[in-house]
Amino acid sequence: MRTGKFITFEGIDGSGKTTQIRYLADYLESLGYEVLLLREPGGTRISEEIRRILLDLKNEGMTAETELFLFEAARSQLVREIIVPALERGVWVISDRFHDSTTAYQGYGRGLPLDMVRELNNRAIGDVMPDMTILIELRADARKKRLGRRHDEGMRDRLDVESEVFKQRVCDGFSAIAEEEPARVFRIESQDDKEDTAKLIREQVRRILL
Amino acid sequence: MRTGKFITFEGIDGSGKTTQIRYLADYLESLGYEVLLLREPGGTRISEEIRRILLDLKNEGMTAETELFLFEAARSQLVREIIVPALERGVWVISDRFHDSTTAYQGYGRGLPLDMVRELNNRAIGDVMPDMTILIELRADARKKRLGRRHDEGMRDRLDVESEVFKQRVCDGFSAIAEEEPARVFRIESQDDKEDTAKLIREQVRRILL
Repeated sequence: MRTGKFITFEGIDGSGKTTQIRYLADYLESLGYEVLLLREPGGTRISEEIRRILLDLKNEGMTAETELFLFEAARSQLVREIIVPALERGVWVISDRFHDSTTAYQGYGRGLPLDMVRELNNRAIGDVMPDMTILIELRADARKKRLGRRHDEGMRDRLDVESEVFKQRVCDGFSAIAEEEPARVFRIESQDDKEDTAKLIREQVRRILL
Repeated sequence: MRTGKFITFEGIDGSGKTTQIRYLADYLESLGYEVLLLREPGGTRISEEIRRILLDLKNEGMTAETELFLFEAARSQLVREIIVPALERGVWVISDRFHDSTTAYQGYGRGLPLDMVRELNNRAIGDVMPDMTILIELRADARKKRLGRRHDEGMRDRLDVESEVFKQRVCDGFSAIAEEEPARVFRIESQDDKEDTAKLIREQVRRILL
């Protein structure tokens, strides 16, 4: 029996997911829940080794199919080694990215057939569908500004080096997912004040899961 | 246009695949063909990194699903980076293991659903089905003797540390594949003299591909 809840955060880099996850975790802990924070790809010894291959700038010749399989490998391990046991112990699990990112980036972004991505996502996650997904969306001007900042700081890896066109396709992909699954995926527009965004997210979580 | 031929060798460890591949490559080269030898998992920079994760004894907690996705990731890269371009240049490609090993080990051996393994195999190889597969089969007594030898030599890795029961399931899996696809998969019983086995293989290759 799974008594914990599973929440995923989605959105492009620079959307403020990490900050918002911390706000939500603090809130849930203040209510007495045990919270486990994860980020994809990663979260287990094996998944972190896979992450290293995915992010390595030397692996620029990686095909889209290989990338897809590696994300699903990392996810398979994370689901079975960490997420399922945690949910069964009653822990609330919050993951920074999950299967929707694969649909948005490898499907809509790289152009792999959506049925292939869906098929592999389903095989990797089994029946561990998120109870709720928060999609943080940025206005285009805010997005540009934040990404520019990351570049300046020299924090780029293989997956950051993508064109604006690619990023637009990914954003459109996330929107399409939210439209297809409105009962699970909640779109939150990022506000100028982070605390305002956090409040919008808390309201959704309270309404749906508490 | 693919003008080269693609041959895969299958069978459990210790069946003598490696030796037989060399015999066949020598024969084909003596006929004037250019031959490329590959082994799975591996054969590209990325696939070799994946191989390292798969064979690492420290990764004993790897789930069967993760293992499956990693094999398919390594295969995706090998097919698109190496095999397709070689076949298009007219090179004959011989691979030590390919998708049938995944069906036999991860499907029949580990017990993953066969439809899942087939689905992922198809996604990884696309339309690059081997023109011919040589399945080398050993009599049970010969199999035990050869495996014992590898153990003594300290050549064991994570995938070698498997029970006899597991190995029997894998053998049964290979047999089932050969029965399902008799036009592609040719069973060769390993002979006491390696040159006799090589002769049987050459005869099949001549009959089917030359």
